[in-house]
Amino acid sequence: MEVRLTTGKTVSVSEGDDLYHALKGQGVYLVASCGGKGACGKCKVRIVEGRSESVSHGKLGPKEREEGFVLACQTYPKGDILIEIPKESMLAVGDKIAISKSRDLFELFESFNVAVSPVVKHLCLDVPPPTIHDNISDIERLKRALEERGIKGMRFSHGFVSSMAKALREAEWKIILGYTEDSGAVFISNGNNYKDKYGLAVDIGTTTVVVYLVDLADGRLIDVGSTYNSQIRYGDDVITRIIHATEGGGLSELRDAVIGDINDILTPLVERHSIEREDIASVVVAGNTTMSQLFWGLDPAPIREEPYIPTVNFFPKWRAGTAKIAVNSQAPVYTVPCIASYVGGDIVAGVLASKMHRNPEVALFMDIGTNGEIAVGNNEWLMTAACSAGPCFEGSGIRHGMRATEGAIEKVRIDPKTYEPELGVIGDAKPVGICGSGMIDAISEMFLTGVIDQKGKLVRHRKTDRIRGGEDGFEFVFSREGRDVALTEADIENIIRAKAAIYAGVSLLLKEVGFGLDAVERVYIAGGFGNYLDIERAIILGMLPDLPRDKFTFLGNTSITGAYLCLLSESLRREAEEIASKMTYMELSVSRGFMDEYLSALFLPHTDIGLFPTVAGLMAK
Amino acid sequence: MEVRLTTGKTVSVSEGDDLYHALKGQGVYLVASCGGKGACGKCKVRIVEGRSESVSHGKLGPKEREEGFVLACQTYPKGDILIEIPKESMLAVGDKIAISKSRDLFELFESFNVAVSPVVKHLCLDVPPPTIHDNISDIERLKRALEERGIKGMRFSHGFVSSMAKALREAEWKIILGYTEDSGAVFISNGNNYKDKYGLAVDIGTTTVVVYLVDLADGRLIDVGSTYNSQIRYGDDVITRIIHATEGGGLSELRDAVIGDINDILTPLVERHSIEREDIASVVVAGNTTMSQLFWGLDPAPIREEPYIPTVNFFPKWRAGTAKIAVNSQAPVYTVPCIASYVGGDIVAGVLASKMHRNPEVALFMDIGTNGEIAVGNNEWLMTAACSAGPCFEGSGIRHGMRATEGAIEKVRIDPKTYEPELGVIGDAKPVGICGSGMIDAISEMFLTGVIDQKGKLVRHRKTDRIRGGEDGFEFVFSREGRDVALTEADIENIIRAKAAIYAGVSLLLKEVGFGLDAVERVYIAGGFGNYLDIERAIILGMLPDLPRDKFTFLGNTSITGAYLCLLSESLRREAEEIASKMTYMELSVSRGFMDEYLSALFLPHTDIGLFPTVAGLMAK
Repeated sequence: MEVRLTTGKTVSVSEGDDLYHALKGQGVYLVASCGGKGACGKCKVRIVEGRSESVSHGKLGPKEREEGFVLACQTYPKGDILIEIPKESMLAVGDKIAISKSRDLFELFESFNVAVSPVVKHLCLDVPPPTIHDNISDIERLKRALEERGIKGMRFSHGFVSSMAKALREAEWKIILGYTEDSGAVFISNGNNYKDKYGLAVDIGTTTVVVYLVDLADGRLIDVGSTYNSQIRYGDDVITRIIHATEGGGLSELRDAVIGDINDILTPLVERHSIEREDIASVVVAGNTTMSQLFWGLDPAPIREEPYIPTVNFFPKWRAGTAKIAVNSQAPVYTVPCIASYVGGDIVAGVLASKMHRNPEVALFMDIGTNGEIAVGNNEWLMTAACSAGPCFEGSGIRHGMRATEGAIEKVRIDPKTYEPELGVIGDAKPVGICGSGMIDAISEMFLTGVIDQKGKLVRHRKTDRIRGGEDGFEFVFSREGRDVALTEADIENIIRAKAAIYAGVSLLLKEVGFGLDAVERVYIAGGFGNYLDIERAIILGMLPDLPRDKFTFLGNTSITGAYLCLLSESLRREAEEIASKMTYMELSVSRGFMDEYLSALFLPHTDIGLFPTVAGLMAK
Repeated sequence: MEVRLTTGKTVSVSEGDDLYHALKGQGVYLVASCGGKGACGKCKVRIVEGRSESVSHGKLGPKEREEGFVLACQTYPKGDILIEIPKESMLAVGDKIAISKSRDLFELFESFNVAVSPVVKHLCLDVPPPTIHDNISDIERLKRALEERGIKGMRFSHGFVSSMAKALREAEWKIILGYTEDSGAVFISNGNNYKDKYGLAVDIGTTTVVVYLVDLADGRLIDVGSTYNSQIRYGDDVITRIIHATEGGGLSELRDAVIGDINDILTPLVERHSIEREDIASVVVAGNTTMSQLFWGLDPAPIREEPYIPTVNFFPKWRAGTAKIAVNSQAPVYTVPCIASYVGGDIVAGVLASKMHRNPEVALFMDIGTNGEIAVGNNEWLMTAACSAGPCFEGSGIRHGMRATEGAIEKVRIDPKTYEPELGVIGDAKPVGICGSGMIDAISEMFLTGVIDQKGKLVRHRKTDRIRGGEDGFEFVFSREGRDVALTEADIENIIRAKAAIYAGVSLLLKEVGFGLDAVERVYIAGGFGNYLDIERAIILGMLPDLPRDKFTFLGNTSITGAYLCLLSESLRREAEEIASKMTYMELSVSRGFMDEYLSALFLPHTDIGLFPTVAGLMAK
């Protein structure tokens, strides 16, 4: 049987294969954070023509079902069919935003003023071929050639040696040897016919996984892929995942899930650019401490038991083969070091990308991801803490939430008289969902226009049909083009809880270090907000402190940026390690003040309006 | 269904299971060099009672079939049965000869006058447990404790780190750390409850595999197991195996075969002594160069292509997990270094065990295994060469040939008048076959008594019914107790070819170094001859040179002895490496003189009887 896509592509499918797996098998990758089990509802497709059978409809609403939408993973074609795949169901490969930033990224790297020095170094060697009189073995011959160049004691892994005989002979003994100083030989390339080598920078978020494919010769970002972290099927936050890891087989399920995500993202990237996986010679991974342990299959249980100790913060450079990443199995994997159980390599990468560790001014760094980590300090000292914000800004737990990819509402203005919204959508497409920056815009606008009150409840007597009772309670509809996109009261409550946790964390951390807000000279905001975050609106929401706007800089996903920087430079890897060594971790959860701060922040913008003078001014208008 | 053994043991078997695999699955290990495919005919058992169906009888003769013998791997029980397993079919575990030599072995080790220093060193560490204020990760904590003891830069493999969190906590932070200086941490043991660690010495012969299980605390040989190298199913000699390795999947088949043999030998050993596999913390492997490459899964193809270069002679210490040996996966595997494509670690181990590299007198070392390697030299110089002798002395290619285990004829005297043989059988058992030393005895006796002529042909007019026409041509029957044990003319021809190759090698190597036989002050004979080789008879055969008998010493399997020595001592591992570095390899096959020497040696004892004056004297009588 054949499945035609409205884009023109055709894939074949056998009796008994579901659509999700049939498409995946032939290079069409759908989002499915549940792994294709009918639970997440993300792999929605529309049957345009032909007959199919769906064994379940999961979270699909009656309207969507009426329009012909089905869950691909629950649907079995019963003959040739024609389907349409909505944008939000496609795995985001080649994110236009990120790729457009490629030049900015390399400029950022250049601004650090360090040499390009990837994890794997290259050495051209013209090895004398063996003869009947000079008949030492291949490995001794290579060692002898290295010693003549002053390099002694190089390590040779079994995997490297297994392919050595063939590689040396194919290159006719004129080789380029890829190696790392501490973990030894990585690859042998033909010196007569050298091909560029590539690297991967990987950000493993609790909610999303992002992969950058980088040309190591010139630092160019070639392509980007991202998806939801399919560990989500075992729980939304790190704690439920740690609990799952301690159950029989749970640890390897979690490990396999995230490794599968990375490999799934990688496949279309290498196919599109005709890159040999063997030529991907190094990998840098940044993630929070639990994500880093799970990536390496290390038991995270001690992280949630006092005194909260991870197995590893500073990871040895193990191999891609050990990590099960489908690139050159000998490629070293550099893991950005972690600080403590609840502040990990993503924050170290973020601080690195912000450069706050290089400057004398006191800066505040806020990473608004699933957890919400903050750091404060300068080139002399650094303090950090974690606040449990939850994954809503990454689209998880919000009915129409999505990542900042094409079709996401990222800007919202609401007419104070008609309550009609004006929307900015990524890629100028039809809106299919709302991303983190859109949520912040939306709620601050709803608040300022009186659509919601200070507690985030919809003011039901406003004269607009945009406020309506929906399947999940009251909601405000932002878009009716194609698919309805709305925020429910439950969504709004989730977002307010998240912003309260973040604000409370900032307050408390500053108090602990004995600084007032006025001492903060710069605020760096990081998070998966795509290319846009309206600082003004985030202050109105009460998520960011009410400081002069010119102190704020929005940096986007700094975890992937920091991983990219570490991929390119030995000095920056050393800087990341220094950041991780010198950063002091503060455990907010054992602080008595935290709950008070949190409860006070559960209002818009805050119970103590005196903390938000400019917002008070706006409200007065 | 149940299978009862005449020994009393009962194993259950399901419909459709063959006897060989059913027995193996329940701890009864039969010899099967073909891997249970009906080809080698070694897994013979006798059905005493009950019904069974055999799909093939392979090499079983009509008499054996009449007696109820079947091939276990080709036989399916059709109800409860009672079977008898002949001794020669049992995998030789707990070889009585070798174990009885346990004290001799340790005395040999002591005679080297070096300290016991296994590959893995031990360090007791009392690590301060983590607290909320001292919350560095487990790996940093361990590194800190090591640095306080002056140990920096230890390597931590992923496998070690994966089990570290649990091990540290179970030991309550009082640990014994096992490590090697160059490849890092190996195990964490509970310091409050320390268990002895064990090691394996492994001899991988082309024809046989021997494993010694050793207590690393006191160097005691705990038990021994051995079997045929089941790579035999892909060819008898190294060349056919190298060719097989280059065919699709052949390399991994060969690797899996020998690793399977080692693991098969290991299972009954650890079960019998209630040893945890995790407590087997190091492995030393000695084998010829091809066997060493195949053990590690390295492509041996370049070994047989000019200029005959192996991938590795000096192997890094890779891990047991990488080797797929079923012991502690982190255990380092030390491979005794090889010299050249056709002289390997077995010879280095042998020279080490002989001590010829320590003494000023010129010695000749002869290892009569599948290949037949020889070395000559002293504490200043060493030369070596390989002669293709074939595997007959190890029982392969000889109709009733077997290894030197219980039931093997190892001594033969023939009455010069009646031609009746008098036999010495290992274990004083009923003879079931003939081993290498028995063959040498038998042929020299047959020659001296005129049963065979100088070309090895049976003199058919001798008045004895022991000479008879058999299925495979003319043969001489040594035993009719239970099973007939005979040598055929084809067997005799094989043995004469083997001895000729060895003698020709010795002649040529001595000529090359410019020495006469009289310069040789000692001759060390090694090979799988069990506990017995009659030097006198081997000279009559013309395999050994006709030198004063007191110059000869029979050393048995020196490959396993050398591996055992390397398992126990760092200094001896260094000595082995020095032997491998300083030994000069001579390629006999390119020497024009070889074929002449070989053809001259195809007589008993030799075409030039002047080379064997004492044999000439015996013949005159």
